[in-house]
This record gives sequence, C-alpha cells and structure tokens, in this order.
Amino acid sequence: MTIFSVWAPEASERVDLVLPTEGGRLELVPDGRRPGWWAADVPEAGPGTDYLFSIDGGPGFPDPRSEYQPEGVHGPSRVVDHSAFEWTDHLWRGAAPLSGALVYEAHVGTFTPEGTFEAAIERLAHLVELGVTHLELLPVVEFPGERGWGYDGVDLFAPHHAYGGPDGLKRLVDAAHGVGIGVILDVVYNHLGPDGNYLSAYGPYFTSRYSTPWGEAVNYDDAGSDEVRRFVCDNACHWLEHYHVDGLRLDAVHAIFDTSAVHILEEMARRVWTLQSRLGRRKFLVAESDLNDPKLVRAPEAGGFGLDAAWSDDFHHALHSSLTGERAGYYEDFGGLAPLGRALERGYVYAGDHSPHRGRRHGRPLTGVPANRLLGYLQNHDQVGNRAAGERSSALMSTGRLHIAAALVLCSPFVPMLFAGEEWGASTPFQYFTDHIDEELGRLVSEGRRREFAAFGWKPHDVPDPQDRATFERSLLDWAEPGKEPHAGLLQWHKDLVALRRRLPALSDGDFHEVDTTWDEKAQWFCLHRGPITVAANLADHAQSVPVRTDGGILLTSDDTAEAGHGTVQLAPDSVAILGPA
Amino acid sequence: MTIFSVWAPEASERVDLVLPTEGGRLELVPDGRRPGWWAADVPEAGPGTDYLFSIDGGPGFPDPRSEYQPEGVHGPSRVVDHSAFEWTDHLWRGAAPLSGALVYEAHVGTFTPEGTFEAAIERLAHLVELGVTHLELLPVVEFPGERGWGYDGVDLFAPHHAYGGPDGLKRLVDAAHGVGIGVILDVVYNHLGPDGNYLSAYGPYFTSRYSTPWGEAVNYDDAGSDEVRRFVCDNACHWLEHYHVDGLRLDAVHAIFDTSAVHILEEMARRVWTLQSRLGRRKFLVAESDLNDPKLVRAPEAGGFGLDAAWSDDFHHALHSSLTGERAGYYEDFGGLAPLGRALERGYVYAGDHSPHRGRRHGRPLTGVPANRLLGYLQNHDQVGNRAAGERSSALMSTGRLHIAAALVLCSPFVPMLFAGEEWGASTPFQYFTDHIDEELGRLVSEGRRREFAAFGWKPHDVPDPQDRATFERSLLDWAEPGKEPHAGLLQWHKDLVALRRRLPALSDGDFHEVDTTWDEKAQWFCLHRGPITVAANLADHAQSVPVRTDGGILLTSDDTAEAGHGTVQLAPDSVAILGPA
Repeated sequence: MTIFSVWAPEASERVDLVLPTEGGRLELVPDGRRPGWWAADVPEAGPGTDYLFSIDGGPGFPDPRSEYQPEGVHGPSRVVDHSAFEWTDHLWRGAAPLSGALVYEAHVGTFTPEGTFEAAIERLAHLVELGVTHLELLPVVEFPGERGWGYDGVDLFAPHHAYGGPDGLKRLVDAAHGVGIGVILDVVYNHLGPDGNYLSAYGPYFTSRYSTPWGEAVNYDDAGSDEVRRFVCDNACHWLEHYHVDGLRLDAVHAIFDTSAVHILEEMARRVWTLQSRLGRRKFLVAESDLNDPKLVRAPEAGGFGLDAAWSDDFHHALHSSLTGERAGYYEDFGGLAPLGRALERGYVYAGDHSPHRGRRHGRPLTGVPANRLLGYLQNHDQVGNRAAGERSSALMSTGRLHIAAALVLCSPFVPMLFAGEEWGASTPFQYFTDHIDEELGRLVSEGRRREFAAFGWKPHDVPDPQDRATFERSLLDWAEPGKEPHAGLLQWHKDLVALRRRLPALSDGDFHEVDTTWDEKAQWFCLHRGPITVAANLADHAQSVPVRTDGGILLTSDDTAEAGHGTVQLAPDSVAILGPA
Repeated sequence: MTIFSVWAPEASERVDLVLPTEGGRLELVPDGRRPGWWAADVPEAGPGTDYLFSIDGGPGFPDPRSEYQPEGVHGPSRVVDHSAFEWTDHLWRGAAPLSGALVYEAHVGTFTPEGTFEAAIERLAHLVELGVTHLELLPVVEFPGERGWGYDGVDLFAPHHAYGGPDGLKRLVDAAHGVGIGVILDVVYNHLGPDGNYLSAYGPYFTSRYSTPWGEAVNYDDAGSDEVRRFVCDNACHWLEHYHVDGLRLDAVHAIFDTSAVHILEEMARRVWTLQSRLGRRKFLVAESDLNDPKLVRAPEAGGFGLDAAWSDDFHHALHSSLTGERAGYYEDFGGLAPLGRALERGYVYAGDHSPHRGRRHGRPLTGVPANRLLGYLQNHDQVGNRAAGERSSALMSTGRLHIAAALVLCSPFVPMLFAGEEWGASTPFQYFTDHIDEELGRLVSEGRRREFAAFGWKPHDVPDPQDRATFERSLLDWAEPGKEPHAGLLQWHKDLVALRRRLPALSDGDFHEVDTTWDEKAQWFCLHRGPITVAANLADHAQSVPVRTDGGILLTSDDTAEAGHGTVQLAPDSVAILGPA
C-alpha cells in the first residue's frame, strides 16, 4: 500500500498524481476526513517511485512533503520507505543533557572534501577525541543547486541529494549514536527559499501580514494556518522520529511571526514533548533568537514556550569585539571588557537596556533561568560566514587570544559550541556560497553581496562571489591542518579545556549566582570567576600580574611561564590560566 | 515658566516654536539629556497660548503631545495648566473593583442632545439609579471634524474641542466621582487616523514591519521605538493622573504588534501600577482583544501582561446569534445554544478550537483565570454600529428576548457591560458617522461603507452615509423614551437584575467552577446555573415547563404567570425566570 496524499486547498477541481517515469497520471480524491486534503492509494507505486502533483491540470510540481528530491528542487519527488533502514542504535535513549553538552556545528558540504553525510562519519572519531557530545548540522534539506549553506531550502522533508539523501543522513545519525554523539539539525521555519518553492500552488503557506528579510513570512496565524502549523510541527517530528535526530536548532525565530494565543514554538515544543514520551527517547529544541527574551526557554506553566535552550549572540559579540577591537555594524553595541563581564554574569548584555545599534531598548533579564539554557560560542557559521571574506577568528586575532577565547567559552556558564575547524584554528575561511540554478537569482545574490559590503568599505572585486565555485572550494576544511603547528597545539588546548570542564562540576553547573567577573580595562586583564575556579587572562602586550581571588594553583595555562601565588597570577602577553583548588 | 519640548528626531537642523496669534517664532534647542528632544522655556507663553512646531523651517504642525486643539486637528495646539482645575474628589481612592462592576459604555456625542461632557453630567443620576459603577467613554481625543466615533483620533493627549475640551472632561470625571462612579476612557494605540496625523514629520511613530486594517502600524519594536512606547505609556498615565480617569479600555490590542521581549502592554501595565502606587488611587487597564489569549490578563510572574480585564466577543457572538438566529459574517462561528453554554462555562467559545470564519484554530483555555477578568455584553458600539444600519438588539429581537438577554448578561459570571440606551431598549440606532474635513477621504469612507455592505446584500442607498449629518442625528439617544412603555418596563427589569446581582454573592464570584449550563436545542430552553441560582429561559414560541436543578423559588421573572416547583419552572414564550433560595 502506498498512499499519496497532499494538502491542496488551492485546487478548485482536481489534483493528479503524475508518474513521469511510467508516464502515468492518476486523479486523487478529496479526503473526506481532512478538508483540503487529497489522497489515493496506488499500491503499484512503491518505495523508489518518482512522482509529482498537478493542480487543476497544471504542470507537475514536487510534493510539499517530498522526502527525497534526487534531481533537485525542480525535479520529481521520490517515495521513501523508512522501515527499510537497518538502525543499530536500539539502546540509544537520547543524547547527553544539553546542560552538560559540547555542541559542534558543521556544514556537511565543507566538513569533508567529499561534502557528504557518509564522509562525515569518518570524522566522528575526531569529535569523540575532542569531547563533543552533539553534532549540529547546518540545514540539510533540499535547496537549489549542489552547494549552499542551506538556508534557502524548499523541500523541508527531504535531505539534500548532494549530501547523500535520506539513507546518507540516517547512516550518519546511526554512526554518531554508535559513538555516543547526538545529532542536531538546523531547521528553517521563518521563510523558504525563493527558487523551487512551489508551496503557494498548493495552499496558503505564506502571509502578507508580516515580512522577513529573506522572503515571504510563513503563515502561522492567518486563515489556513492550522495546516501550515501542522506542516512545520510534522516536519520537526519527521527528523526526530524517522531520522533518529536528537534535537533541532530553529533558525532565526525572531522572524517567526505569530500573534495567536498559542505560539507555534510553544505548540512545537508540546508536539516534541509528546513525541519523546511516545518514542522513549529524549528530544529537544534549541532556538536561534535575537530577541533576548527568556520566554523562549521558560516553561509553558510560567508563560514560556518551553524550548530547551537558545543561542546567545550577546556573549559572542561581547567576546569577539573585546578580543578583536571591532566596533563596526552590530559590534557598535559592544567592545571593551564590561560587556563581556555582563554577558558572562547575566547571559544577555542587553536585558532591557538601550541598544545604540537597534535604536531602542532591547531584551529583558533572564531572571530565574539557568545559564546553560544559553549556548555560548566564539564562532558560528553566521558570525564567520557573514563577514565579507568569511574570516574565522584565527584570521582576526593572535594565537594567544584564540587560547583566551577558547578558555572563556569552555569555562563559561553557557553550553559551549564550536564551529567545525575552530578547535584547530583552521586557516580556511567559511565564505558565503550559493549555486543558484536560476541565473537571474544568482546574479542578484552576487550583486547583493557586493553592495552589502560596499557599505563597509569593501571594493566589489574583493568580495568573494557566492556563485563562483572557487568560493565554495576555499571554504572546505583542510584536515591536514590539525596535525601541524600551530593548529595541533590549539587543538590540544581545546581538548584539555573540554576535559577540565568535564572534571570540574563548578564549570557546568550553569548557576549565574556563582559567576562573577573582574577586569581592568586600562591594564587589560580579565578574570572569570566560577565558584572556586578562576580564568585569568592577560590581554596586554606585556607580561603582568593579574589579581585573582583564589589561593588555588594553576590547573591549566597557555603560558608555560605562568606563576600563581599571593592572590595573583603572572601571565605573558595574550595568555590565560585557569586556577583553582587541585 | 512654560517649557515647550518635543521629540523630533526627524529634524536635521532646527525646530521652531511658532506662536500664530503673536506672530512669533522661536528656536528650540536640543535637549542635552534626551536624544532627539528639543526644548525652550518661554515664560511669556503661559496657559492658553496657542502654538505650533516647525521642523527644519517647514510649516507649523500641532504638537504630537498637544493637550488641546481648540480649532481641530489642523489648528494650533494650546497650552493647558492642569493645576488650575479645582477638583472636588479628594476622598476618591479609585472606582469599585472591576470584579463587581457594572460598566456602561457611552459615546459622548450621542449620549445627550448637546453631545458634550457637560451635558453628560446631567445623566449621571440615571446611571446611579441603574446601578452603574463605571462609565466608559468612546474615544474622546481630537479627531477630524465635529462628530465621529473617535477611533481616528490623532491628538492623543487632547480631549475633543467639540465635547468641551480639557475642562469639560475634568468636570465630568469629577462629577462622576462625586456620585461614586468611576470613569474609563477608550484609547486607541494600534493606529492613528489618517487626517491631521502629523506625527511622522516628527519621528518614527510608525513602522512598515506590520500592517493594520485601519492604517499604519504603530512602531513598538523597531528603531526609535523607545520614545514611541514612552509616548503611549505617558498618554495612558496622562488621563489617569491629570484627568483622574480610573481606567482605560485599550482598543483592538490584537492590532498592536510587538515582538520585543517586553510587550508594550506589559510595560504599560507596569507603568500604571507604578502610577497608582504613587497616586494612592486604584487604576486599571482593560483590553479589547480578539486573540482569546489569557496571557493578556495573567500576572507578569506567570508570563502575562498583567492587564485587569478583557472584552469577550465570544460571549456576545454566542448570545446574539442564539437570540437572533443570525449566522452571517463572524456569526457563522456561533449559533444555537451550545456555544452560549460554552461561553458561559469557559469564557471563550474558541479556546484552541477550529474557527470556520477565521479558517484556523483560535484561542486557548482560560485555565486558572476567573470569569470576571472578562467583560460580558449583549451590545457595544461595535456590535451595534458596525451593522449596516446600526440596529440595536431592540430592532432585532422581541422584547421578551431582550429580557432574556439582560438576565443572562447580568447573571453571567463576567463583568456585565451595557451600551448606553440598552437599558431601556432604545429605538434609536447607533450608526457609523464621520465628519471628515478632507473631502476625498470623506468620499472614500462613504463609498467604502457602501461597498462593505454590498457583500451582505445591501443596496447602496439603503446604507446610511457616514458623512451625512442626518446619520449622526439619527444616532442621538432619545431621553423621552425611558419614561414610556415598553422602554420603562425594560429599564425597570435591568434595575431589578442589577439589584439582584448585587444582593447575591453567587452572581458576582466569577468562579467558572460554579458555572454550569443545561439546554435543549429542540425544545428551545436554556438554563444558566451559578451555584444555587438558576436562570431559566424559554425561547420557544409556546409556553413550556423548563427543568431546573433548584428547589428554590422565583427570585425575579419577566413572566407574571411563571410558576416553579417539582424541579421545573413553567414559562411563557420568550420569557425568563431567576430561581434560587430566598
């Protein structure tokens, strides 16, 4: 039995199943129980069958819930049989708790030379050695072309054909579970890409009530929104159930507009809660949000959405600007050591304070919320790739400062996250690349990129062209690097920090009350205190004695000459030491 | 000392104070402490001075915070001295608690033949006799022309000149307090009227991120929004402090869009809380909302906005459609006795249920929220006036049914509200009227109205023309009516019900757990049970015996022949009885 069904309220007369290979066409019938749905049982069209839907006799379009697009966004959809895959993770009850996690963000296409799920499996051993608990993949759903970041995906149920399709993703998840690593998928529910987006032919997936910077807003509260909400909630559950994915990272939820009484994110969290109960496996949701709003991670009984965690760009911006001195764009809201201290002590730098860059007050305090409901990081795909040349931190600061940054991230009260390659200070950039098939769209993307950075003083030809294949190729990780200096040393530093974090309960308790910072902007030193542990950093261009509060010794340091005692630690320029009771 | 100040970030070079009477012009200087503000102290321009502001040498516009527009929306603003008014309400500590209130909604312009605040004072005795605790006025701020509902106001700090300006409003509030009645003002913070709206010349009051059905959305979360939020919060406090107003009714908050971490309504509730503490007088906020979202009235510590109450259109729609049989427009979501029972038992008919009219699920349950956080009513300005001919319920149902409706509203668990004239079944309509000075706008409004109702089968010339003065005049209340039958009888019925509600604690406890309903759609009877009290209504066209749960006798009835006993009450067609322990 193969049941084809589709929600197509836009169809006024008929919906046909089109079988391009067989040359067949078969009329669906309205589903009596579900208004707007059409269905047919076509036993002969089993797994592997390619198909399209035609609305009112129009051209064949991919299924909005297509589970595989072997020929790309404009090609036919293919029937997938989830019962066929042979899982080996029967004992898996869910990934490690997020509160004690080390998340590792990676882009499938550039993580390995092959750019596939399969090739990523070979790198799991590296992640295990590093101490990674969760591998987070940039969006893997079908987007136009063969390469791209994935945020213009259009077939939200289909793993990208170039990455290895459904079976490839399953093999990667199964292998990750096999070495104790959970998998997080980045999913985009705020907009869909412009190319290959046939959803409007089927139903009111989009609304003109709101607008997003990237395209039409998804319809979560206008007429017909029940099915759209079900579409995205089903999508979330699809990955968690059929692909054994452990959690989802929800892209830019500040661009998800919903004024209805039950916000779509609250509804999704409820659906995922129900699913994990049924499956007997822990599942979770993490939001990317620039709202600085604790509502996202508060429990529903406290008026929250009940998500498990949220990204914290404030900590990133404070850390990045304090170490690089950058103050352009959104970094104008940060800079110096005070915002860094504030981010570590309170999570948000802007918690109801006036943001010059936003031209308004921003955020509210995280009262009562533990720090490890936030993710903390020095780098991520956006912060690297949204720079004109996609420069990583290793291109923007000294190796000494990379050590300091790693110590602050990995000793922070937040859930630490690394961006693939960060652990060895990869010299390869992560640039913005696309492969738009639509030539006009490709031209617009290239031009838009040049125009965007002209405002920051970049000459047009210095801005890498997203459509140029070389831009993608430059962004591939070089796996020879981690074996060479200075990369090998930095990698070991990360491993040592992760091991220290795991060994010391004070570092992963997430209690804001146990976080304090001290610093001297003029003398250029900074200390993070976490209960009995102190991370002391010397940011000056000369050696100096940094006052600390502990009598404990040096647990770990990037400076072989460091000496602690009498309430101070003597540190070389751009170096860091972690002190505490042995 | 008279300080003129204005927030005008749009001014690039200068802001001038223009004194049209004196022919003077005086340059304001930037306020060093408040970015974007300009100010000057002009001691000679005391109370009563007319003035305008000119931006960068442009024409003179009214002050965005003008407190009086004696010549209308396009004329100069006038300086008002609030210390000059002689208040007599020194002992007033706030109005009766909303949970035990009877709210009376009135439109100043049609409430009396004179259409002024002053004339309304003369009708306070009528309200006292009826048992009204709160007089709620449709928007009183300056709108274009001499007559209108008030929802296209543009000078949000200025009581309309045609109603009697600042002193008139103060005299009305003072007089109301003198007879123990609190005053609620209807304020509109979701949009401003199109004519006379000069705000954009001064600053970013509006945003293109969202849209409302009535005009540009107010900027509550975009750049520059801090001052816009302060503008509306100051406005709320302005009425509560300088005019001794007790509470505000916030118009259509579902069209107030704000995704920032602290919603503008939560911020406003906090401001009002602070104000009432400082003034030592109880102040409150009531929302008109079609969101069916308990978040509005939940406490901030439970993730809510902390408003005091909200209007409940669901109860209105259920009551209206069950008594009139109407099913057009939004009434398609209602009809019959089941929705009426549900509204009374749960507050919302739609609490996460699919709404056919909205084409989506709607609302969420009011778990833990008392019923008297909702207002319940058979009529209001919108439900009457948004009909093509502005027909009141008295034109749409029998006098018997008007008695039933009054009994259900005044014995409901909600805060009952009456629309002026409802208590005597006024025969005068309340039609949609405007007086747009801008001819093109006037023409558009008239045409729009005709087009809107063409969809409901109305011929163009049967739809009253809003711009026609006769439309306004038809809407004036006729104060001779309450002395004549059948009006006098209905008025007495309302008084008896109000007195009963006051006498019986079971009727005002607001406990949903103590509310139950029984009904028979076929036999056409309906009972509302509130603890030991039962309201039994016979909606059939013949006398019948209605089963009740009480052994109590008849406390009040619209049917002189009614007889109770043996678990039933015998009722004439379209009649009602309230039963309970004596």
